[in-house]
Amino acid sequence: MPGEFEYIAWLRARTPAHSRVRLGPGDDCAALEPPARELLVTTDMLMDGTDFILSEVGARRVGRKAMAANLSDIAAMAGVPTAATVSLALPNSHGADLARELFLGLRDVADAFNVPIVGGDTNSWAGSLVVSVTALGEATVRGPVRRGGARPGDWIFVSGPLGGSILGHHLDFTPRVAEALQLHELVELRAMCDISDGLSADLNHICEESRCGAVLDGDAVPITDAARELSRTSGRTPLQHALGDGEDFELVFTVSPEDGTKLLARRPFPSLAKIGECVETGLWLEINGTRQPLAPTGWVHSL
Amino acid sequence: MPGEFEYIAWLRARTPAHSRVRLGPGDDCAALEPPARELLVTTDMLMDGTDFILSEVGARRVGRKAMAANLSDIAAMAGVPTAATVSLALPNSHGADLARELFLGLRDVADAFNVPIVGGDTNSWAGSLVVSVTALGEATVRGPVRRGGARPGDWIFVSGPLGGSILGHHLDFTPRVAEALQLHELVELRAMCDISDGLSADLNHICEESRCGAVLDGDAVPITDAARELSRTSGRTPLQHALGDGEDFELVFTVSPEDGTKLLARRPFPSLAKIGECVETGLWLEINGTRQPLAPTGWVHSL
Repeated sequence: MPGEFEYIAWLRARTPAHSRVRLGPGDDCAALEPPARELLVTTDMLMDGTDFILSEVGARRVGRKAMAANLSDIAAMAGVPTAATVSLALPNSHGADLARELFLGLRDVADAFNVPIVGGDTNSWAGSLVVSVTALGEATVRGPVRRGGARPGDWIFVSGPLGGSILGHHLDFTPRVAEALQLHELVELRAMCDISDGLSADLNHICEESRCGAVLDGDAVPITDAARELSRTSGRTPLQHALGDGEDFELVFTVSPEDGTKLLARRPFPSLAKIGECVETGLWLEINGTRQPLAPTGWVHSL
Repeated sequence: MPGEFEYIAWLRARTPAHSRVRLGPGDDCAALEPPARELLVTTDMLMDGTDFILSEVGARRVGRKAMAANLSDIAAMAGVPTAATVSLALPNSHGADLARELFLGLRDVADAFNVPIVGGDTNSWAGSLVVSVTALGEATVRGPVRRGGARPGDWIFVSGPLGGSILGHHLDFTPRVAEALQLHELVELRAMCDISDGLSADLNHICEESRCGAVLDGDAVPITDAARELSRTSGRTPLQHALGDGEDFELVFTVSPEDGTKLLARRPFPSLAKIGECVETGLWLEINGTRQPLAPTGWVHSL
C-alpha cells in the first residue's frame, strides 16, 4: 500500500505529474483514471540467485530487469503500459542504498515508457532480495493480441536477434512496447508472445493455444553476437542458443501472408525478421530444405 | 504472467466464470473489462518469519492473510474489489502441497468477495516463502475515500474491537469490504484507513493527511478478548494493546456529527463504535475527563 512505501516521497519528487493518476501515495490504494478499453494486468517476481545475482550485477540493473520484464508482457499483448506497483523484500544486510539503486533502475525503464509507479510495499527481512512488480496496461482500439489466433499458412516473425542473453541482455533489454504498437497499427497481429522461455518454447505456446504447428527456417532465425560468443565454449551451435536460451524479450508473432508481405516491404524497424510459417501440426526446423522435429526446449538432434 | 502460473489450470477449474475477465491464463497478461469509475490498485508482500511463521500457522492461513490484507486496503477506500494477481517464491524444501494450500487460502478469501485471481507468477527458490498479492478495485459512485478529508469536529468511529491480533486475528480476519460499502452508502465518509499499524498510528496518518488532530475516548475504544488475554502477561493494559498492537484490519474513519448521530441511531452493524472526535491539533487520549498526549506508537505514559 502506498502509505507504507518508504521511498515514495523521494520517488514522488522525481516522478513527473501524471494525468492518469488521480490519487497518489498517502492513501491505502492508488486511484487511476479508468482505462477506455480492456485493462491488462501482469505480474513478475524476480529473486536473487534465480533471476539475477545481486552481488555481480548491482541493484540498478535488477530494478531495470524487474520493470522491463513486466512491460514486455504488456508489449506481448500490443498494449499500452499505464502504471506499475512494486513490492520489495530487502535483505537486512544491505542499507538504504540498495532500495535507492533498485528504484533508480525501476524508474529508468518506467520513465522511458511514461509509466508511473503508483504504489508498493517496501519490507526488509533476513532473506535475499525479492522484487515483485505488477504492471497495468490498456489495450489499443484494435484489442489485445492473444496467443491463440495463429492459423496454418501464417508467416512467423521475430522482432530481433536471439540467444546468449545470459551474457547481459537479460538485464539490459528494452521491452518491445513501441515496436508492438507500431506492428499492431500496420497489420493484423494474429498471435504474439514475448520470448522469455526461448523461441522454441514460446512458439510452441502459440502453437498449443492456436492448435496449429510451425516450421522455423533455420537460416532465417537472427542470431546475436552473444549467442556466437557462448557457442565457442558451450558445445552448442549459435542457432541452438537462439532457439533455446530464453530471456530474449523479443516478440514472436504471426500474420497472414498478405500482411507478412506488407511487413517485409515496409520494414517498420530494421531488426524485424521473417523466420518461418505456421503449418497444421508439429514443431519443425528446416535447414537446407530438410525438415526435422524441433523440441520446445530448443533441442535439435542433428545440430 | 498467467502463462507461467503453474497451478492456474487447477485453479481455473475451481473458479467460477467471471464476467469481468475477458481473457484469462494462457496469455501474457490477463485482460479485464475496464472499470466504470476510478481504478484502485494496492499491493502487499508477506514474508515468512516477518508476517507469519509458516511452520506454526500453515500455508492455508498464510494464503488467507495475503489476500485479506490486500482486500482490506480496497475496503479502506470504500471500493469494490474486482481482481487480484498472486506472485509466489516457494521454498525448494517444500513440495507442491505448499502451493496448493496457499492457493486454497487465497481462494477462501477471494471467493468470499467474488474476486477472480487473474494471473500470477509461481517460482521456487532456496529462500523462505514470499507471497505478493496485488488487488484491483473500483470506486463506487461516491468516489474513493481518502485519508485527508477529516475536519476538526468530526466524529471518529472504528468498525470493531482492537488489540491482541497476534493471537490469531492477524491471520483470520475478514476484510471490512462489505461494512465499508454499507457505511459509504449511508453517510459521507470524510477520511478512512484500515488499521494495520495500530489505532494510534493509523489515526495519526489520518490526522497528518487531514492536517488536524484527534482525541480518543479511552473508555469507548472497543477491546478484544485477545488484548485482555495478552495483558495478563505483557505488562501492558488491554487499552494499550488496542491502541498499539496493529494488524486489526478494522476500519477507522471520520464523519460529520450529523452523520455520526445517524450512524449511532441506525447502527448498520453491531461492532461499530464511536471512539473520539477530531480537534485542531495533536493526538490525545481522554480518560475520566483527563486529556493526555498519545504517541502514534500507542504509548501512553500514565497507563
